[in-house]
Parts: sequence; structure tokens; C-alpha cells
Amino acid sequence: MSWRATILTLFPEMFPGPLGQSLAGRALKDGIWALDALQIRDFATDKHRTVDDTPCGGGAGMVMKPDVVDAACAGADIGARELVYLTPRGAPLTQAMVREFTAGPGVVLLCGRYEGVDQRVVEARGMREVSVGDFVLSGGEPAALVLLDACIRLLPGVMGAAESADEESFSAGLLEYPHYTRPADWQGRAVPPVLLSGHHAEITKWRHAEAERLTRERRPDLFNQYLAAARGPLARPPAAA
Amino acid sequence: MSWRATILTLFPEMFPGPLGQSLAGRALKDGIWALDALQIRDFATDKHRTVDDTPCGGGAGMVMKPDVVDAACAGADIGARELVYLTPRGAPLTQAMVREFTAGPGVVLLCGRYEGVDQRVVEARGMREVSVGDFVLSGGEPAALVLLDACIRLLPGVMGAAESADEESFSAGLLEYPHYTRPADWQGRAVPPVLLSGHHAEITKWRHAEAERLTRERRPDLFNQYLAAARGPLARPPAAA
Repeated sequence: MSWRATILTLFPEMFPGPLGQSLAGRALKDGIWALDALQIRDFATDKHRTVDDTPCGGGAGMVMKPDVVDAACAGADIGARELVYLTPRGAPLTQAMVREFTAGPGVVLLCGRYEGVDQRVVEARGMREVSVGDFVLSGGEPAALVLLDACIRLLPGVMGAAESADEESFSAGLLEYPHYTRPADWQGRAVPPVLLSGHHAEITKWRHAEAERLTRERRPDLFNQYLAAARGPLARPPAAA
Repeated sequence: MSWRATILTLFPEMFPGPLGQSLAGRALKDGIWALDALQIRDFATDKHRTVDDTPCGGGAGMVMKPDVVDAACAGADIGARELVYLTPRGAPLTQAMVREFTAGPGVVLLCGRYEGVDQRVVEARGMREVSVGDFVLSGGEPAALVLLDACIRLLPGVMGAAESADEESFSAGLLEYPHYTRPADWQGRAVPPVLLSGHHAEITKWRHAEAERLTRERRPDLFNQYLAAARGPLARPPAAA
């Protein structure tokens, strides 16, 4: 049975969009994953098909109505899948979370528009609030495309042996080392000599050192997590009672 | 003159994709921004139009050739625009960076595929390496869509007065407070009474307290930055010499 993604959106025509091409597009045609995009407006019950209303307490923008969003969730055949609400207020998406999503039967992704969704339906449905980053989008749809792209490439059968996920950024808690290809000299810039040496142990050592250096320089937050994990649980200071 | 985005990609047909619809699509039709997507393969010079080669030092995957990527950059009419390489090894995209991009004449976005781009052309061209998050995508294209969506909504004339960017996540270094709309009681869940009180000062106070509470609970990293900024530079401990 395919891994299944259901999108709840006011713009179902945005899907599959870029996911209909390249790696994800081939996997969709091959039935490795399945997609359905539901129009939230179809679950509105008044004659104007109203999906939003003004925010309680005033302020700019509109808020998506809890009853309409709840009805859309009911229509999504969630089953054992995780129900994710894409919002900048959510937990940051990580590669570990992506692996968690791909280990299950699929995801249901709620895309907010305007100021977002009434918080009561988020709580009533036990939605997992997930953010793709510390920036604001016009809606959840571009975030959904990113989350799905990250998941789909990890599904069994999607990446060939030539496109391994074993040695890439975040797989060991580090950013990936830099890449080089031919020519050995390009505009006076040389490939680091060790990479042309043929000494596999030295190459592995150099790449690991570069991954550590880059992570330390660019992402001290990740590097500290990496060091803490390397020390292991026994070496961690005891938690305060 | 429009804000201009040029995409260097092996999949130009992915653009504008979702950005051709809704808010960004209207702005594109209105000429508020302009888009061109260049096929990197068109800049390959051999008869097979080769864009990639095996990594120096061995390992899985392919690396995009420095000469071909450099020629694509030369063909992009970069001008005063920032040249951004989308890679998980880059600096995390933030709302402050989005505002910086929108303040300029536009962006040129290089989308990698396979294992990425030869690091020498990244350095030779002084590319700004930017990541949309700590996860791995099939290529830079979904990341480019997210970056552009975040930028376009902030361009003058794109958002109406009803869609203000003044009070949203990250505008004050905090996650946004929760939203509610009618009905006041939905399935036994009540809107917080203060929001129905009509006391604007109390509503503002409640919303600020909720934004602080949410950020403290969900994103201690952001909350610590917020506290440091609130203390101001004079209150910071002196940097080590």
C-alpha cells in the first residue's frame, strides 16, 4: 500500500505542482506514494461557502472557522496517519521528524491561509503543529510541498543506489562536507589534494573533519547538540530535580 | 521596476508552479515581481549537455560541474541582486533575511540537485549559502519556492490592508499568539473571555503574554534571543577579548 498524503487546502490546484516532476513525480506515477488534495471550501455549509471570519478581539486579517476545518478533517480519512498543521508557531521540521513521518502510513497536512486556523480545532483534533522555518509564508501550501519532498525521497524505492541518504547533511547531526568534481584545477582553484590521493581512510577522515568544522563555524547550535550526543547520556550533567 | 527573481535549475518547468496562483500569482500578473527560470543544462558545452560528474574522493551521487554552474551564473544577468545557493549547509533562512532580500532589486537562486554543486564555484562567485531548514530535499527547487513566497508577500502592493505583516510571527522576535473566531462556544470550547470583553488594552496585554508564553514553551532558543534583545546591548556581558 502506498504512503499517502492528503492536503487540506484552499488551493488544491497547487498540488502536486513541483512534486509531479523529477524524483517525486516518478514515484507518484509508480504508485510509491499517493496524493489527494481536498478543497476546504467544499466543507463549508452556508450558501456563500464561508471558510473564515474576523478574529475575536479585533485586529487585521481573517481566521479559518473551526467548524469548517473540523469538517474537512472528518472528510480526510485520517486513519492512523499523523494530522499536521503547518504554522510558523509549530515545532521546527527536522530530518528526524521527516524520518518519523516516512516510517508511518502517510500524513494529512492542513494548510492555513490568512491569519491561520481557530486554535480550538487545532486542540480538539490534537494536531501536530509543525513549522518549516522562522519566516512567514502566504499560506501552508509551500511548506507542505517542502515537507512532502523531504519525505518522498526517503520512501523505499524512490532514490536509487547512486543517490544514497546515508552520508548527507543531518544524517550524523552534522552539515555535510563540501563536494568537488573534475577538473582538478578550475580557474586556478584546486580540488583539495587529499581527495585525489586514493587513500580512502584519509579521505574519510578529511570529510569528517570538514563536516565538523563547517558545523562548528556555521551552526554552533547543531554542533553543541552533536557534542552532547557524542558524550552520551552517562556523561551528561544530571537534570535538576 | 519589478522585483526580479531568476532561478538557475535543472527543472525550470517547476516555476512559477504554486507561485503562479493566489497572492503571488496576482502579484506576478500585476508586474509587482518578475520571474525567469534558466535551464542550467543549456549552459553545458559538450554534445551530451553534461551537468554533473562523479565526486572527487569517491562516494555516492554526482556533483554539479563548476564550469557549467559558472556559465549559468554568467547568463543570469545578476546585476546588483544577491546570488543565493540553496543548500542544507547554508545559514538558516529567517524573516530578517527575507526582509533584506525584499529591500533589494531581487534575487538569483541557484538550485542544486544530486549531491550539490562543486564548492569552488560557490566560493568563486561569492554565493550566499542559505538553508530553509534542517532537513534534506530532492533539490533546491522546493526551497526556492518557499523563499520566494516569503519574499513576495512583503513586496509593496502585494498584501492588502486586511493582511498586515505588522503583528505576525517573528515580527517582534516572538511566535504569534493564538487566533479565535466565531462561534464563541464551539463544541463546548470557549473563546478566551478577554477577547470578547471589548477592552482593547487588556486584549493587547493578553495577546502579548500568550506570544511570550508560547515562545518560551515551544522555542526556548528564540525566547532567549528575545530576552537578550529586550535587555539591550548595554546590559549584555562583555565579549571575551
